[in-house]
Amino acid sequence: MRVFSLICSTIAVLPLPAIAQDLASWNDGPAKAAIVDFVTAATSENGPQWIAPEDRIATFDNDGTLWTEQPMYFQAAFLFDRILKMAAHHPEWKEQPPFKGVLEGDFSALPANTERDLMELVAVSHAGMTEEAFAEIVRDWMATARHPRFNRPYDSLVFQPMVEMLDYLRDNGFQTWIVSGGGVDFMRPWVEKAYGIPPQQVVGSQIGLEYQVIDGKPEIMRKPEVFFIDDKEGKPVGISRHIGKRPVIAFGNSDGDYQMLDYVTSSAGAHLGVIIHHTDAVREYAYDKESKVGLLQQALIDAPTKNWIVIDMAKDWSRIYPDLH
Amino acid sequence: MRVFSLICSTIAVLPLPAIAQDLASWNDGPAKAAIVDFVTAATSENGPQWIAPEDRIATFDNDGTLWTEQPMYFQAAFLFDRILKMAAHHPEWKEQPPFKGVLEGDFSALPANTERDLMELVAVSHAGMTEEAFAEIVRDWMATARHPRFNRPYDSLVFQPMVEMLDYLRDNGFQTWIVSGGGVDFMRPWVEKAYGIPPQQVVGSQIGLEYQVIDGKPEIMRKPEVFFIDDKEGKPVGISRHIGKRPVIAFGNSDGDYQMLDYVTSSAGAHLGVIIHHTDAVREYAYDKESKVGLLQQALIDAPTKNWIVIDMAKDWSRIYPDLH
Repeated sequence: MRVFSLICSTIAVLPLPAIAQDLASWNDGPAKAAIVDFVTAATSENGPQWIAPEDRIATFDNDGTLWTEQPMYFQAAFLFDRILKMAAHHPEWKEQPPFKGVLEGDFSALPANTERDLMELVAVSHAGMTEEAFAEIVRDWMATARHPRFNRPYDSLVFQPMVEMLDYLRDNGFQTWIVSGGGVDFMRPWVEKAYGIPPQQVVGSQIGLEYQVIDGKPEIMRKPEVFFIDDKEGKPVGISRHIGKRPVIAFGNSDGDYQMLDYVTSSAGAHLGVIIHHTDAVREYAYDKESKVGLLQQALIDAPTKNWIVIDMAKDWSRIYPDLH
Repeated sequence: MRVFSLICSTIAVLPLPAIAQDLASWNDGPAKAAIVDFVTAATSENGPQWIAPEDRIATFDNDGTLWTEQPMYFQAAFLFDRILKMAAHHPEWKEQPPFKGVLEGDFSALPANTERDLMELVAVSHAGMTEEAFAEIVRDWMATARHPRFNRPYDSLVFQPMVEMLDYLRDNGFQTWIVSGGGVDFMRPWVEKAYGIPPQQVVGSQIGLEYQVIDGKPEIMRKPEVFFIDDKEGKPVGISRHIGKRPVIAFGNSDGDYQMLDYVTSSAGAHLGVIIHHTDAVREYAYDKESKVGLLQQALIDAPTKNWIVIDMAKDWSRIYPDLH
């Protein structure tokens, strides 16, 4: 058994050929071809673009890159549902913005400045319980909440082409990591099932944590304070803190991913940067430089000079979501 | 190739039998037997102590648990060498404690309170360069510096029995993580070669990091400020931030590991806590409740009631260090 296992381990680190036929939901075209060419070259030992197995690290934004982020970040929907539930114990919220707006269903009353402001609300509504109790709250919500337009569970609104891309990269020896502005503890309970990414390969925004012994049992308690914002300049910093080396592949979809894309694609060795451009209002959403959620402006302008591949969702993807079972 | 790889992957997640003969530097006795019994039970599917592969996470303190920490933390030796090198550009240090003490070779003049104070000095002497430049400085030092007593490179003073333990646990499907009070960026450049632990599985203390674009290239710059202390209560917090779930095995050697041991061994499921007791003044060092470095007092007192296994280095280990090649 042990010898056989050793043989298998040895085989597992041999460069596998790139297996493009697994990208079944990707239409043939220059974008798909460029990604497959990169992976083929990266796994061709003795080739000029070969990447050593330990350096095969690929980072992915989550919101808008691996799953839908409209009409609002899904973590915001979770947050609003939480606040509605908690409001019974907080009568003062009826007159107190931003809670007032949430309770009245007026989400436009919320602070506009996206993820940093959102994290402040997250800190208030997501704290005061253990890490394990919070994971249970997230799992419960994911099992019961439904997206307003598609009437499906949120974790079924992952992008099928990206699920295939993650599999394809892992089959070719790449580690796949999420590097998201979203809260790390909101993602960890469900990403392994949705994407095949284990919780320890999720980098995200974090709130305060405190070690406490409660009734004799050590617990990690969640505290109502922002600890780290993993967005924009924070993404390369989060990568450095968790991974400790510069990745070779980055996928993003908004200007919040600009610094991660730039950090990854400015290395001396082979590298790949990809932008998911939301162009499909029929099957998903179409938005870029004027969107409140997932603004994509500077990264799209600079993509040609930076050699970032731009995926046109309407043209490049033959399907958007996986089937429901 | 692909099918064969799939077969191998499938085999790799099957529970392997515990292979105790690989623990060649461990003397037979109750400590070794207890660890092997635990691993055998954890990998026995359908058994009452079975641990699912995704939950097989083992965390290890570094200083004093995986390598020697006397006569001072090895990172302190690195720090002093750095300060001696930098002193040429800092004439004011000659009169300024704690630099004065370092320059005069009087290490006892340093603040006594171990890792937190040390991290302040680390922040001063380890900042102002990119992450990649710092990794190079660490690698250079590791290649040239020698331990004062053993006259060997510091990274050859890892404990051979623990290297075997890490291999043994990985062979049985456990992820092996370092959770150390030491600086994460001091460990990452060499732990993969020394222990087989990749940089992304190292949790440690961290200084400030900042994203900067320097001459058009994005870099992570190291800043002279403490960001996170991964010691005592910080260890379970660091585990939660990086791994996102409670491990099932913890190895430590000092009261700085108490909270990690307690956190890991208070879960409802199967778990294992182990303390390395330094009892071998001939081959290594003997110290516990009165040591300035690696104080072991409360954890040793509580070990019997907490069911933590105590390793007696003199009795349980047939050798301490690997051979030099």
